[in-house]
Amino acid sequence: MEAEEQSEWGPKAWAYLSSVRKQSPLIQCITNFVSMDLTANTLLSAGASPAMLHSSNEIPDFTPQVHALYINVGTLSDNWLPAMKLAAELASKSNKPWVLDPVAAGASSFRLRACLDLISLKPTVIRGNASEIMALANASVGSTKGVDSSHESIDAVEAAKCLANSSGAVVAVSGAVDFVTDGKRVVGARNGVPMMQKITATGCAVTALIAAFVAVDQSQALEATASALAVFGVAGEMGMEIAKGPASLRMHLIDSLHGLDQSAVISRVKITTS
Amino acid sequence: MEAEEQSEWGPKAWAYLSSVRKQSPLIQCITNFVSMDLTANTLLSAGASPAMLHSSNEIPDFTPQVHALYINVGTLSDNWLPAMKLAAELASKSNKPWVLDPVAAGASSFRLRACLDLISLKPTVIRGNASEIMALANASVGSTKGVDSSHESIDAVEAAKCLANSSGAVVAVSGAVDFVTDGKRVVGARNGVPMMQKITATGCAVTALIAAFVAVDQSQALEATASALAVFGVAGEMGMEIAKGPASLRMHLIDSLHGLDQSAVISRVKITTS
Amino acid sequence: MEAEEQSEWGPKAWAYLSSVRKQSPLIQCITNFVSMDLTANTLLSAGASPAMLHSSNEIPDFTPQVHALYINVGTLSDNWLPAMKLAAELASKSNKPWVLDPVAAGASSFRLRACLDLISLKPTVIRGNASEIMALANASVGSTKGVDSSHESIDAVEAAKCLANSSGAVVAVSGAVDFVTDGKRVVGARNGVPMMQKITATGCAVTALIAAFVAVDQSQALEATASALAVFGVAGEMGMEIAKGPASLRMHLIDSLHGLDQSAVISRVKITTS
Repeated sequence: MEAEEQSEWGPKAWAYLSSVRKQSPLIQCITNFVSMDLTANTLLSAGASPAMLHSSNEIPDFTPQVHALYINVGTLSDNWLPAMKLAAELASKSNKPWVLDPVAAGASSFRLRACLDLISLKPTVIRGNASEIMALANASVGSTKGVDSSHESIDAVEAAKCLANSSGAVVAVSGAVDFVTDGKRVVGARNGVPMMQKITATGCAVTALIAAFVAVDQSQALEATASALAVFGVAGEMGMEIAKGPASLRMHLIDSLHGLDQSAVISRVKITTS
Repeated sequence: MEAEEQSEWGPKAWAYLSSVRKQSPLIQCITNFVSMDLTANTLLSAGASPAMLHSSNEIPDFTPQVHALYINVGTLSDNWLPAMKLAAELASKSNKPWVLDPVAAGASSFRLRACLDLISLKPTVIRGNASEIMALANASVGSTKGVDSSHESIDAVEAAKCLANSSGAVVAVSGAVDFVTDGKRVVGARNGVPMMQKITATGCAVTALIAAFVAVDQSQALEATASALAVFGVAGEMGMEIAKGPASLRMHLIDSLHGLDQSAVISRVKITTS
Repeated sequence: MEAEEQSEWGPKAWAYLSSVRKQSPLIQCITNFVSMDLTANTLLSAGASPAMLHSSNEIPDFTPQVHALYINVGTLSDNWLPAMKLAAELASKSNKPWVLDPVAAGASSFRLRACLDLISLKPTVIRGNASEIMALANASVGSTKGVDSSHESIDAVEAAKCLANSSGAVVAVSGAVDFVTDGKRVVGARNGVPMMQKITATGCAVTALIAAFVAVDQSQALEATASALAVFGVAGEMGMEIAKGPASLRMHLIDSLHGLDQSAVISRVKITTS
């Protein structure tokens, strides 16, 4: 019944994007150096308000005021980890949603440990590629080849369900299809184009978008997550229609995200529960 | 008498840009992680020579050689603050102009304190949005919503005059109109397009451009500041004529800044003393 | 006999690029904040797999798994230097190629010392501009004007030979012509366009590309280095045909690098031994 499902999900995704544009939620981002530009521009293009603050000196003042927190361990160091934990704790305590991107979780035992510690602080959503989610579910190092996935997302669905059940988070696994699960339900977000993987930080950027979508409706994190993944994918599809390569795709994707209208979202969003 | 004023300011702005292109001033930037790429590309496109050096180990060797210093507290941490202070001190001592961008000054007491400490080191120019300038003038936390302004620049003009008088700096307040004051005179730079606010780090980038303009003529910091704001705004207007969204505007803005010729600057620059 | 030489070098350069696309080598990058985005996108567009990991906590786990290491001192600090050294040591010990970009080597004695220490850890390739290579060969501060070169690459060829002989590295000097030497042979890579110097981090990006080319054939580092420089230059030339300024050139360059085909590489690569 994909057609029927689409007619539900399209308006849902549009409602999330519209709310973000209207409410302009403030999203604190503690993210890696590579992705800061694209992440901030993705949030701005979607109508949200990004703030890159990572110092423990100001997190106690600032984090309680934000609408959602986004943590990404891409360029992790022991300098930054305490601030990540402090912000996550404060977000959890003040009942703000927070979203984790466990980049390259299996690349080292330091990184795996850091991710597991962060997960114990109750993220609302975790989004990674198949290798990252499998490393976290198995608490094992070595299944990640750098930041790119060496597994298909379909292989990671069972791992994602385990991780969702053990952590209480909604877990998303990116791949040709993006799967999102709360441990029971699994939905597949089927938008996007392969060339998005040739642009650095698109995964980081879409996780930030998830934070913005969750910020406007924390009660349905699975729906918000699937919608954000699909909307970003739609922007990529529309960008791909005029792109000549990965760098022009990056530009057109952001332009498209900014310009997305109701009919494009409703007609293009493909989310299924199959 | 706007027409007459324009005929004064256009050639003045063009003279500044021409000097930057000819002299290629070396601008040390201690800026936030988000803005480094756009800041460096803005300076290069204007003909200046950016250098991102932030280590206290080399500031004593390097800062005395630069033509201007740019400090931006966007992703402030207690690691970086001592280097910012050291560089500002050295610039002041060696009579080099330096420019401060007090990003999100009111976001935390740590950040506000840091900005006020930096201001005590005698910046030549301070440029912020209305919320930031008001937080600094009132020395108060909480009026800032992240890095985006929640006030109009017109509301901040009185605050800017106070800050200019107390600090000795020229103060610029960005908004629909950018106001620049030395505490007595106020000029309004009226170029630019609203979509520039949907691109991360445009504020940071134009503050760097101010540093380049001040580098070639420190004696008239108000004129240099207004000219830099207007020139950047003109590049934005020209970019907007062919942009399809914020990401293409970012590209066309930089291309336009690089290609600006005398007639475009003279005919488009709008600076008024009203 | 340039024509004959080209008929050798074109297929050689194409073979390197094809190998990178096929093997997708994992390149660890410990690079400056300004260049991370362009560096990662350059590697992805060429078919390599970038990983920006810089923490000493995970280098012992991670570096032995990579195919090449890239170190760039652009935004050096004493926080990052030990990690750079540790990674370089591990790469050398495990016989992995590693490539150094000594950005602004002569800007301070701290930076010069750091670069010389890194060079003692046996880089496979060093690529810098004329000022940087001359500072290193002479072990002297002050010949660098920030990050931009104040010397022509031809002046630095003798310095490059000295440095190659003393360090055991292949040394490349970027300029209007890029010269590459192993201390005996000197080849000139003659592709590229002047406007590439108006884009921040193109030098950093091409050094990362050298790391990717060396990763697929460590035995011929001079050939791999010259090929990477030429291929990047070809992408710049093709980008320039449709660019309107430095920002659109940046985009078209990456698109072109991604789309390069055999005939473009073979017909355009200009490498000479004269």
